[in-house]
Amino acid sequence: MRFFSDNAAAAHPKVIEAIVESNRMDTAYDGDAWSARLDGAFSDLFETEVRAFWVTTGTAANCLALAALCPPYRSILCHSDAHIEVDEAGAPGFFTGGAKLMLLDGAGAKLAPDEVGAACDRIRPDVHQVQPGALSITNATEYGLVYTAAEVAALGRLAKERGLAFHMDGARFANALASTGESPADVTWRAGVDALSFGFIKNGGLNAEALILFRTELADEIAVRRKRAGHLLSKGRMMAAQILALLDDGLWLENARASNAAARILAEAAPGRLSYPVEANEIFLKVTGLEAAALRAAGYDFYDWGPGEIRLVTSWDQPGEAVEQLAAAIRAL
Amino acid sequence: MRFFSDNAAAAHPKVIEAIVESNRMDTAYDGDAWSARLDGAFSDLFETEVRAFWVTTGTAANCLALAALCPPYRSILCHSDAHIEVDEAGAPGFFTGGAKLMLLDGAGAKLAPDEVGAACDRIRPDVHQVQPGALSITNATEYGLVYTAAEVAALGRLAKERGLAFHMDGARFANALASTGESPADVTWRAGVDALSFGFIKNGGLNAEALILFRTELADEIAVRRKRAGHLLSKGRMMAAQILALLDDGLWLENARASNAAARILAEAAPGRLSYPVEANEIFLKVTGLEAAALRAAGYDFYDWGPGEIRLVTSWDQPGEAVEQLAAAIRAL
Amino acid sequence: MRFFSDNAAAAHPKVIEAIVESNRMDTAYDGDAWSARLDGAFSDLFETEVRAFWVTTGTAANCLALAALCPPYRSILCHSDAHIEVDEAGAPGFFTGGAKLMLLDGAGAKLAPDEVGAACDRIRPDVHQVQPGALSITNATEYGLVYTAAEVAALGRLAKERGLAFHMDGARFANALASTGESPADVTWRAGVDALSFGFIKNGGLNAEALILFRTELADEIAVRRKRAGHLLSKGRMMAAQILALLDDGLWLENARASNAAARILAEAAPGRLSYPVEANEIFLKVTGLEAAALRAAGYDFYDWGPGEIRLVTSWDQPGEAVEQLAAAIRAL
Amino acid sequence: MRFFSDNAAAAHPKVIEAIVESNRMDTAYDGDAWSARLDGAFSDLFETEVRAFWVTTGTAANCLALAALCPPYRSILCHSDAHIEVDEAGAPGFFTGGAKLMLLDGAGAKLAPDEVGAACDRIRPDVHQVQPGALSITNATEYGLVYTAAEVAALGRLAKERGLAFHMDGARFANALASTGESPADVTWRAGVDALSFGFIKNGGLNAEALILFRTELADEIAVRRKRAGHLLSKGRMMAAQILALLDDGLWLENARASNAAARILAEAAPGRLSYPVEANEIFLKVTGLEAAALRAAGYDFYDWGPGEIRLVTSWDQPGEAVEQLAAAIRAL
Repeated sequence: MRFFSDNAAAAHPKVIEAIVESNRMDTAYDGDAWSARLDGAFSDLFETEVRAFWVTTGTAANCLALAALCPPYRSILCHSDAHIEVDEAGAPGFFTGGAKLMLLDGAGAKLAPDEVGAACDRIRPDVHQVQPGALSITNATEYGLVYTAAEVAALGRLAKERGLAFHMDGARFANALASTGESPADVTWRAGVDALSFGFIKNGGLNAEALILFRTELADEIAVRRKRAGHLLSKGRMMAAQILALLDDGLWLENARASNAAARILAEAAPGRLSYPVEANEIFLKVTGLEAAALRAAGYDFYDWGPGEIRLVTSWDQPGEAVEQLAAAIRAL
Repeated sequence: MRFFSDNAAAAHPKVIEAIVESNRMDTAYDGDAWSARLDGAFSDLFETEVRAFWVTTGTAANCLALAALCPPYRSILCHSDAHIEVDEAGAPGFFTGGAKLMLLDGAGAKLAPDEVGAACDRIRPDVHQVQPGALSITNATEYGLVYTAAEVAALGRLAKERGLAFHMDGARFANALASTGESPADVTWRAGVDALSFGFIKNGGLNAEALILFRTELADEIAVRRKRAGHLLSKGRMMAAQILALLDDGLWLENARASNAAARILAEAAPGRLSYPVEANEIFLKVTGLEAAALRAAGYDFYDWGPGEIRLVTSWDQPGEAVEQLAAAIRAL
Repeated sequence: MRFFSDNAAAAHPKVIEAIVESNRMDTAYDGDAWSARLDGAFSDLFETEVRAFWVTTGTAANCLALAALCPPYRSILCHSDAHIEVDEAGAPGFFTGGAKLMLLDGAGAKLAPDEVGAACDRIRPDVHQVQPGALSITNATEYGLVYTAAEVAALGRLAKERGLAFHMDGARFANALASTGESPADVTWRAGVDALSFGFIKNGGLNAEALILFRTELADEIAVRRKRAGHLLSKGRMMAAQILALLDDGLWLENARASNAAARILAEAAPGRLSYPVEANEIFLKVTGLEAAALRAAGYDFYDWGPGEIRLVTSWDQPGEAVEQLAAAIRAL
Repeated sequence: MRFFSDNAAAAHPKVIEAIVESNRMDTAYDGDAWSARLDGAFSDLFETEVRAFWVTTGTAANCLALAALCPPYRSILCHSDAHIEVDEAGAPGFFTGGAKLMLLDGAGAKLAPDEVGAACDRIRPDVHQVQPGALSITNATEYGLVYTAAEVAALGRLAKERGLAFHMDGARFANALASTGESPADVTWRAGVDALSFGFIKNGGLNAEALILFRTELADEIAVRRKRAGHLLSKGRMMAAQILALLDDGLWLENARASNAAARILAEAAPGRLSYPVEANEIFLKVTGLEAAALRAAGYDFYDWGPGEIRLVTSWDQPGEAVEQLAAAIRAL
């Protein structure tokens, strides 16, 4: 059984169904009936007028947003473990035209206002040093921690004071909300977030993420940048249909609750081994090499995060039975 | 009935079937079993070792290829009606880091060696003028003309003499081959082509094009550039599966033959109105505004190409009956 | 005697003197006493508050301005003979991050509002085609024609209507003003110009041009972009000192009047041979190959502009006698 | 007396003389007689065939070199205190088209092979993480330390093993050589360096640095990139003449010896206060705020490097007397 990554999971049957249903000739690009419903669907969800764009990867969502939020001659403040720094092949530099990532620390890949403020203070305000232009956080973080709305709002206030745009990488936004039970609005625009990469692919989607703009005046620019980056698919109806299927009846939250619940089961199997609190669907466990090998021998697949540590990721489609068996195997170590 | 564009057509049922079949957990990105078969499948088709990459748009295929073939400080020679110039929102400039497109003329968006050579000669060989770095042609062209292998080879020889890399935008490559009956190898690498954007989306695919590298030493760079541009999808198996379904049993050629045949039927309905010979699946017709309105009133959808001209595009999924009815409607004008 | 290009001329003795005088330790970069005077000096000259930046080349002045005026995903409308298109090695693409140049025609490299408006109208207002973002004209043009303030104002009104920023490449701005006798203000900001590349190097300077911002809110961005492009010299005092020396007592206009007068003398020697009216300091003459050879044999150096045409450029430092002798030689052909 | 920075120093009289002498009409750009001598002069100095380019700033020299040595999708390994990271406004990102700087540590801004190797080992060799493409060191470092030829060679061997290009920022290269007495060849190409930014401006030049290519096959690319970045000055003779004046009779070494000697005098005045050994012309002193104020009150200007630390920089043109007086003032604290 794979506990390697949620981005390798299957797509939800309703997503596949939606693709099949949308597979008929319609207007190309995003002129179709499904794409036309996106803005409304997300505006409802976020209780404010937003503009929503489908894209095929989280990297595209993140970097299109950052390109619109940060000029090439400024920097983006982010955690040194942020996906945009560690796992996107330098895409922020490509999309922004050379903006720098300025790396900050914080336990569990989580940023706190003090550290962000201190980092800004360390920059000489002259033309020789790159001035900060944007702040980007990941929610849930790369280590499975979740920001509360209040924590985001504290960062949002700081961003505003410092003149920074504010982006949230929500590759696991559903898991974060399923964890806190807070509202999509509270943890984003009401907390000062300008743009959100709203992940669906790790949560039942096939290949559609949504880029949500709370600053709707950026929509025209994003539309052009998406096309210019080769991300405007001809048959966009298939993209929108996936997202609508997951939004429908809260399927996205249901899937996220399932994977979070599975993660809790695993976490409870080995409380003493956890590197971080398990707040979403990632579990980082301290195990010896022999223990890791034993788990693998028992048929479980996962990521070696470093010497003595493994990462398990749960996803919506893992059978409860398999999760329970893995929990038992962990307990038995 | 829509004759607007083949990129709005439905995906072929076998493509949808392949997506459904591949919808199970596997290794993420392009580490899956389907993606692993792509290089081999295309190497067989092209009778030489190639490297193949799935991407979601023709713009991505074109511009990733051009970025690897042309440094930022050189220019790409192409027709002034080329898709990369006219319809990609400046994506070549974005992907290459600022390379220029140098625009050439030629009837029906087709380039001839003389014009390309003359354009090169007009450039002063100094650091003040941008020196050419690559040649890009579209086959079939934006006006539905097709290059023979001999014509491509003549351009290929010139490119070699002039030190230019050679790219083919094959958004309708299947239609071109279906038209001439020539072999994929003869019209590409044997004719000097370095990289091909092999289109599937207009020809039964859902959202997968293939970027084919005949200069296989560029594969590592393309792999990185694809990721860096946000084009490495998590569930790449769904991309490869589509392409394999279309390659299987020559479905891609079958689809292209169908749309070419439909185009010929329409062309024969109005030989005196044709702006260009109909060699693939696009028909440009000279009609008056009233005639265009009459066709629209009769339920046909198409593109107004300019005053007094319309563009009809046939696709694999248009029922033969609808094509015959449109032909009759054209004859009746 | 060289009539090859005014950018090969010597620097004026007062410029050299100013460099020598400013050669003492002061604050680095542009924190020195000379640089501090630039904004005021140019604000006086332009009768409004401007921000002025020294740079070492016209290419840097043009492209820094364009980078601030046009986003990477838009195009810059300019003449197909414009220096930014023909002689800057693709620098606009580099500085802007990939913006396109959209090329227009017009006699003598001069643009008219009708042609600019028609070019805008030809662009489909969608995300597939690159939308125009800026207009750039050269004054005096690459063929030595001069825009009147009224002509610039007509373009300025069009730019405003179309939402285009407006840049003037004034590599020979002094020659243009010396020709019309109009005021610096009338031909720039009062006519809608947002930024001016004010050339000094062809007119007695050593290596300092001025980038003048009439939209002063762009100053901070330009300051950063200048540094980021490696154009913030350590000993900027030497740059500012040159420019101040040329502004002092109108030396810049005096020099331009001298070279314009020399050009008129040459023009009057061969009125029937002129390709364009001679309004500034460039003369394009129709001569046979034998005639060109005869002039060269007589010791005159110039540029072969094409078959049957030569370009002569006068500069502030050519002795009147040499000009008269060349005029006589032309008459004698 | 200013001990603020050597880049604010005056130009050497012989440099001014050379500018005055070269101030006559010649071929523009780098086609003049002075520029033609550069390659030979530096080839002699480096005892091998090199290609040399004048540029106006160290930032331009560094970033043009890095753009030719590192593709946009790779990273440049450098010290976290390197000038390219800290003081060039993100110019490396701009010139390379988005390459990342990967920051390493090391006492006194000096890199050691172990740290560089370990940093490379920490990067997963996949398409998700940015792979290293080049190594850049500063000699003398930003803290005034000097690399021996053997130390550079150890880094050069590592760079070769790891497939990294190797760049040296030699803004104070003269001070480094004056310090070790080693040969220019030994500390550069014989040690594996591919390109050197050879600083003259801090050492008696006015505004000319030299970019030296030991990999001469990159010369054509650098020539184009220099022009494209707006760094090809019209009157390049004035640039080359400066450099030739400093190379002549070893004036560059003489100036560097003078500033190094001055630095040693200051260092010997307060051995217990030194943050780093003084190997070139920079002195970092631990002083209290009161002590710093006392020095300022006594007429000395310098940089506050942080709480409790100041930076003094000596330059070729500081009178020996002033240096002795400052030394006495430091001793008297």
